[in-house]
Amino acid sequence: MSRAYEELQPYLERAQAFQTAKVLFEWDNETLAPKAAGSNTSKVVGTLSSEYFSVITDEKVVRLVKECGKDELTPVESAIVRELSEEIEKLQCVPAKEYREFAELTSEGTRIWADARKEKNFEKFAPTLKKLIEYTKKFASYRAKEGQRLYDVLLEDYEKGFDMETLDKFFGTLREQLVPFLKKITESGVEIRDDFLTGDYKEEDQEAIGRFFAEYVGFDFDKGVMAVSAHPFTTNLHNKDVRITTSYNRHVDDSLFSVIHESGHAMYEMGIPDELTQTLVGQGASMGMHESQSRFFENIIGRNEAFWLPVYGKLQEQFPKELGKVTVQEFVKAINKVEPSLIRTQADELTYSLHVMIRYEIEKMLIEEDLEVEKLPEIWADKYEEYLGVRPKDVAEGVLQDIHWSQGAFGYFPSYALGSAFGAQLYAYMKHKMDFEGLLEKGEISTIREFLRENIHRYGKLKTSRQMLKDITGEDFNPQYYVDYLTEKYGKLYAG
Amino acid sequence: MSRAYEELQPYLERAQAFQTAKVLFEWDNETLAPKAAGSNTSKVVGTLSSEYFSVITDEKVVRLVKECGKDELTPVESAIVRELSEEIEKLQCVPAKEYREFAELTSEGTRIWADARKEKNFEKFAPTLKKLIEYTKKFASYRAKEGQRLYDVLLEDYEKGFDMETLDKFFGTLREQLVPFLKKITESGVEIRDDFLTGDYKEEDQEAIGRFFAEYVGFDFDKGVMAVSAHPFTTNLHNKDVRITTSYNRHVDDSLFSVIHESGHAMYEMGIPDELTQTLVGQGASMGMHESQSRFFENIIGRNEAFWLPVYGKLQEQFPKELGKVTVQEFVKAINKVEPSLIRTQADELTYSLHVMIRYEIEKMLIEEDLEVEKLPEIWADKYEEYLGVRPKDVAEGVLQDIHWSQGAFGYFPSYALGSAFGAQLYAYMKHKMDFEGLLEKGEISTIREFLRENIHRYGKLKTSRQMLKDITGEDFNPQYYVDYLTEKYGKLYAG
Repeated sequence: MSRAYEELQPYLERAQAFQTAKVLFEWDNETLAPKAAGSNTSKVVGTLSSEYFSVITDEKVVRLVKECGKDELTPVESAIVRELSEEIEKLQCVPAKEYREFAELTSEGTRIWADARKEKNFEKFAPTLKKLIEYTKKFASYRAKEGQRLYDVLLEDYEKGFDMETLDKFFGTLREQLVPFLKKITESGVEIRDDFLTGDYKEEDQEAIGRFFAEYVGFDFDKGVMAVSAHPFTTNLHNKDVRITTSYNRHVDDSLFSVIHESGHAMYEMGIPDELTQTLVGQGASMGMHESQSRFFENIIGRNEAFWLPVYGKLQEQFPKELGKVTVQEFVKAINKVEPSLIRTQADELTYSLHVMIRYEIEKMLIEEDLEVEKLPEIWADKYEEYLGVRPKDVAEGVLQDIHWSQGAFGYFPSYALGSAFGAQLYAYMKHKMDFEGLLEKGEISTIREFLRENIHRYGKLKTSRQMLKDITGEDFNPQYYVDYLTEKYGKLYAG
Repeated sequence: MSRAYEELQPYLERAQAFQTAKVLFEWDNETLAPKAAGSNTSKVVGTLSSEYFSVITDEKVVRLVKECGKDELTPVESAIVRELSEEIEKLQCVPAKEYREFAELTSEGTRIWADARKEKNFEKFAPTLKKLIEYTKKFASYRAKEGQRLYDVLLEDYEKGFDMETLDKFFGTLREQLVPFLKKITESGVEIRDDFLTGDYKEEDQEAIGRFFAEYVGFDFDKGVMAVSAHPFTTNLHNKDVRITTSYNRHVDDSLFSVIHESGHAMYEMGIPDELTQTLVGQGASMGMHESQSRFFENIIGRNEAFWLPVYGKLQEQFPKELGKVTVQEFVKAINKVEPSLIRTQADELTYSLHVMIRYEIEKMLIEEDLEVEKLPEIWADKYEEYLGVRPKDVAEGVLQDIHWSQGAFGYFPSYALGSAFGAQLYAYMKHKMDFEGLLEKGEISTIREFLRENIHRYGKLKTSRQMLKDITGEDFNPQYYVDYLTEKYGKLYAG
């Protein structure tokens, strides 16, 4: 082992501990912490953030990273040093004081957002959002390379190699092909019945069936827990402690598919090898790759008729009153019904990427065009009307629906659409390699999961998403697979 | 403000953050964390512990504390410097490596203990317990002043000014007066009916009524949460995030009184002023003082007929089938029934201190007389038979019932009995100052709580328990109040 690399270890261990503690506080904040805990706890989280900052930017760490460059390292060691070096670059640009202020702001911001959303009061969140944008732009400007635009700096954080140029093309393709396709469908006259998905679905029954399906797709409850929060999410302390949340309402499919979605994220993190977990490369490769896994499980697996054939009876058993007389074919049609709507997380598979497109366009305006925060609710509503033909009646179902901005996450949204496209490309390849639907019909999801573990999960951050796609499918990222998948699936469903 | 004191602040803030993060991990470990998380999470907790250690023993901190001695400080500042100085002394004696190993051992130990208890398998826990005792003794030997005995070093940690000499006398008094009194009662022939306390009390109903009574005695759910764990406990991140747990079984009084007990602890921490919270003096004065509050609420208030007169109807409403026909007098007799038993946390008020006495005697043997760990189950059983006339049939209801040793907490148990005695002394004084039972009958617990807040809670660690008792009652600690309280109360109940 390189001497410099060895000397880095205690620093990395400390950074890891501070980071993990922060993750636990975030989890706790969104699932359990008492209302009044706010500012006292933010102080603690702020201190942990600045400790992380201090370790990573410690001058000895900076020196050791440079020295490592001269030594011979294993591929894993090199990747860790590369991640560390990028993290140093990211953090060193930001003055410690500002970094800490930002950490406190995001901790507090999530709480303020939740309150504002509850009260449907955008003004309550606006001043915080303004500050969050200011910090984000300032930090991006510190890090921007010559000529690099600020939003490109942010996009790069979530998905290496995808900038505004690429994304404009990507979303352009979707807009060109999917928007007219969607119009054709909504005007097809085909009506799909889905009234039975809404009703007095008891929370405890939804929880029970959620746990069943999480386990059925492969979530390991020895290495994870499931709880309730306003907005479903997945977080992980390490590969043996991965946590998902969901929330319950009268639409049984909401919690059901959010659980399968988050399980997809969770299995990615549970699939990180022991050698990589608790290191800088011990997490999913990118946000997009993560979404490729979650949306793969949610849609390509979870909304597939073949998936439901062996287990629909289980769902009927849990809800005999609501689903006893609904056939599996009717159920599968219902969970694939296309209906332009207001809430991204409840959107159908086809319109989903249009929700993301709206956010991408608005983020570009916020970061690149100085859009005034006050105008957000209206612009949001206008775009929904333009692309999806629906208009939110309040900010809770409009601009305040997502947690991301309150956490300072700008540039994250596009990865949702990219993830779906990655997933479709993987699916096209896998269908040639295995009897995909046949496996689902036999309830043998483990074969599919094993393929993903073997080709994606086990690499952690050792490869980029783009490289992995190429290594697996033998082809660079190609969004046409996504469009083809959607138009074929929904063309059939709405053939009338 | 003293310059040295000011320079200490960032160090204290960091120490506080590491400590608070550790508390959250402990809470999480006992309430939610997945089974397999164990060793990966222990690594994180170990790092946080050694970070705490590094900050407190940083040579600059040591120097600044000395410099503070020369400056003029406010009483709060002096108290913080005093606590810090004691903490430095405590930690400096221990080599950093050993401190860290011990932290990891206790984190892992709690998990091993829980498994061993579940499996009723003492051998599974014995090797860990042995190591815990070795570390504890080694650490105590580092810190012992000349001629000071090891167990006295440990006792001092939980209750300043109470050593083996004092405690031998204290427990001697109890043994002399309470053991014959208990004998008289058990042979009185008076039979109290309490069969209705056991039954199919639904968990969700127990939880609902637990939340009601927590709030009724003054637990503020805006500043706290309630969850489930194997062994009820209270923990706090700061004065606005205080957490209690309970567990549910077929005995409704178990969870009911554990909730009131933990609420007593919690209100102490919620009563710490904002100026003190998140500092080294921002917690209860001592373990004994803490127990005085929890046992005060549990027994002196919670098992008082006057307490139940206005709210017993509420309990009946929740459990009409089980308690609809039980009068409040029958209920109050039942919850005060004296019955020598095996589990400390379920013990009645009168026999409770005998459970503690057994642990005190055994800890003395473990620390001072090199009692072999292997012999524990039998010695435990023998002592229960000797003092209480009952013998555990397995280790789960014997030596493995308490979590304390798995956390490395030796010397803690005596504070439970001391707390009860402190409470009785406070009660005797308060009865002269206010119409105690009259207030309870009117449901005006706030007056009593306010007295405790004003005279105890608000001081945090600014005074010792002994000093506070003296300042309030005008008298030094006097265990006779405890014996008199018990013999009067239970003499009446068992008058026949």
